[in-house]
Amino acid sequence: MIPGPTPVPETVLKAMARHPIGHRTSEFQSVVQKTNKQLQWLHQTSNDVLVITGSGTAAMEAGIINTLSRGNKVICGNNGKFGERWVKVCSAYGLDVIEIKETWGTPLNTEQFRKILEADENKEIKAVIVTHSETSTGVINDLKTISKHVQNHKSALTIADCVTSLGACNVPMDEWGLDVIASGSQKGYMMPPGLSFVAMSDRAWNAYNESNLPKFYLDLGPYRKTSKNNSNPFTPSVNLYFALEAALEMMQSEGLEQIFKRHSRHRYATQEGMKAIGMSLYASEGYGSPAITSILTKDIDAEIIRKLVKDRFDILLAGGQDHLKGKIFRIGHLGFVNDRDILTVIAAIEAVMSSLGMHHGKVGDGIAAAASTLQ
Amino acid sequence: MIPGPTPVPETVLKAMARHPIGHRTSEFQSVVQKTNKQLQWLHQTSNDVLVITGSGTAAMEAGIINTLSRGNKVICGNNGKFGERWVKVCSAYGLDVIEIKETWGTPLNTEQFRKILEADENKEIKAVIVTHSETSTGVINDLKTISKHVQNHKSALTIADCVTSLGACNVPMDEWGLDVIASGSQKGYMMPPGLSFVAMSDRAWNAYNESNLPKFYLDLGPYRKTSKNNSNPFTPSVNLYFALEAALEMMQSEGLEQIFKRHSRHRYATQEGMKAIGMSLYASEGYGSPAITSILTKDIDAEIIRKLVKDRFDILLAGGQDHLKGKIFRIGHLGFVNDRDILTVIAAIEAVMSSLGMHHGKVGDGIAAAASTLQ
Repeated sequence: MIPGPTPVPETVLKAMARHPIGHRTSEFQSVVQKTNKQLQWLHQTSNDVLVITGSGTAAMEAGIINTLSRGNKVICGNNGKFGERWVKVCSAYGLDVIEIKETWGTPLNTEQFRKILEADENKEIKAVIVTHSETSTGVINDLKTISKHVQNHKSALTIADCVTSLGACNVPMDEWGLDVIASGSQKGYMMPPGLSFVAMSDRAWNAYNESNLPKFYLDLGPYRKTSKNNSNPFTPSVNLYFALEAALEMMQSEGLEQIFKRHSRHRYATQEGMKAIGMSLYASEGYGSPAITSILTKDIDAEIIRKLVKDRFDILLAGGQDHLKGKIFRIGHLGFVNDRDILTVIAAIEAVMSSLGMHHGKVGDGIAAAASTLQ
Repeated sequence: MIPGPTPVPETVLKAMARHPIGHRTSEFQSVVQKTNKQLQWLHQTSNDVLVITGSGTAAMEAGIINTLSRGNKVICGNNGKFGERWVKVCSAYGLDVIEIKETWGTPLNTEQFRKILEADENKEIKAVIVTHSETSTGVINDLKTISKHVQNHKSALTIADCVTSLGACNVPMDEWGLDVIASGSQKGYMMPPGLSFVAMSDRAWNAYNESNLPKFYLDLGPYRKTSKNNSNPFTPSVNLYFALEAALEMMQSEGLEQIFKRHSRHRYATQEGMKAIGMSLYASEGYGSPAITSILTKDIDAEIIRKLVKDRFDILLAGGQDHLKGKIFRIGHLGFVNDRDILTVIAAIEAVMSSLGMHHGKVGDGIAAAASTLQ
């Protein structure tokens, strides 16, 4: 129950174990052709969705360095470890970053984006970089509203880290006018880590033509060109492609609407279950991610709870990162997770809190609240 | 029988199919600790060997951009598609490239390296970039001699693409004084594609401290730092790590000497088998790679032979790339290949050449020559 690597269905694991085939064969081209279409379905877009052998960071870096040039001014939302990371990527490439910061746990203030964009009469801002679901805190930022403000600016691009939102909640690329979406396989895709994805709008490709930042492995031009021939510029992770095909097939048979509803129900059930036993939610009210629920453990080191849940029930929770270490734990409910998993993790936490004498109610209250929400 | 993805043993495929585990758990740290040691064994080095989720190109690019700075002068050996690629990587990052070119099929002239390095009295040359086994042509370059000339220069680094030589023939990093070695999982490692490896000497790390080329995902500093704690800077391909552990265990139980001998025997058996039926070897005499044998098909389109071998015997051979398309085919004998595989591919080629009326002898001559060499 961590926010990645997430649980992987047996069908997908079996696909991983197929013998690899030549990546220049027509057999493999069929896989690429199929997954290209499946990826467009998942992104709700007619844009190219390119596949990189690498982590989500590689995809996000690719999105940034393929659309911008040295010295470009960009806005970077920063309310968690990943927001912070994109600031670092921008700095590494000599971009001029305006940070819009928020305390961890609090969503980005969309009004700040609006004001800065409206004040930019000379259209100096080339991109707005936003983390949709901030994995480190379990906060979902209001990407839709921010993207609307960027569209009103008429010049800047929206570059979105959707690593833990894509496949968990609605991210309609075309409808929202998103220009770049980055994601990773070990999240909503229900796959092991190792592949990442960058979707690029036509506006993003126009910016690509102007971009002067140096790149080779992450140069998306050759990915686009080869993708049109159902191929890849470099030897791709063939077995993860097999897994991708299998996982996206499963997602397609469940359907996007159902996937989003499931994640939403799991979010609320987890939140209600935790509140019912007196635990505090870390994310601001109304901004809990559909993928991760963070719990603030005021009176006890969160690592103690995490260790007991692991040792006694063999359930892995995620800890807090950086200054949040020991202050929060995080429950992942992303990807291949069902109602049983939600009840199981809540029951385990209830048992542990009770044994610590810190259960603020009757054992079972969490389960009752979660079960009622799930219904 | 292509030079990658190469055949993968069942043990390794099964390891691929394990459920992924959290990459920040102590269980995964044990895997990283073990594979770090195994990788040092394979590279015959006490240097760091870092693991990147990406292709061999990502590893090679990392080696280049972590040790050099904009405008640096470098020598780049170019006698095939991969040599050509490293020239492109250098150009993308604004390096000043001196190309030492050779016709495809011919090995790099080590004397040219010596002369240019000796003439560089002001020590302007910062690195010499060499492809050890040129996968596109099946030529093995004399890396040992080139590296000796670089060491006499006393300032430049040797950056070696050992993608199809590591695990196929002797590449003793420390003994030869190599500074950077790049390799990829789908080759001698007997694994599916998706992981790549960069080994860095102390001299390379000193150069890292001076390097000003922009990078983030491929910045090796964080890889080194986290590797010391048996971890990774970004979510690694957990399942490919499982495969790596299993594959390197198999390699260790065979032993480096035995692995090298096996590849050498397969090279000579393939060469002798092909010569016995009147086929021409493409690589210059004495410079055939232990991983790949390229055959020049003078009187017939090589693609016809390749197609017949595939259609009739379900054996995939590699074709020629770029201007060599239709002119050569390539037999991969790299990684998990045994004597039976060598006889099988030669028998299939004999049958096809005979049916084309182009077998220059008696069917079976190739097998006889190969079998005798194998003995």
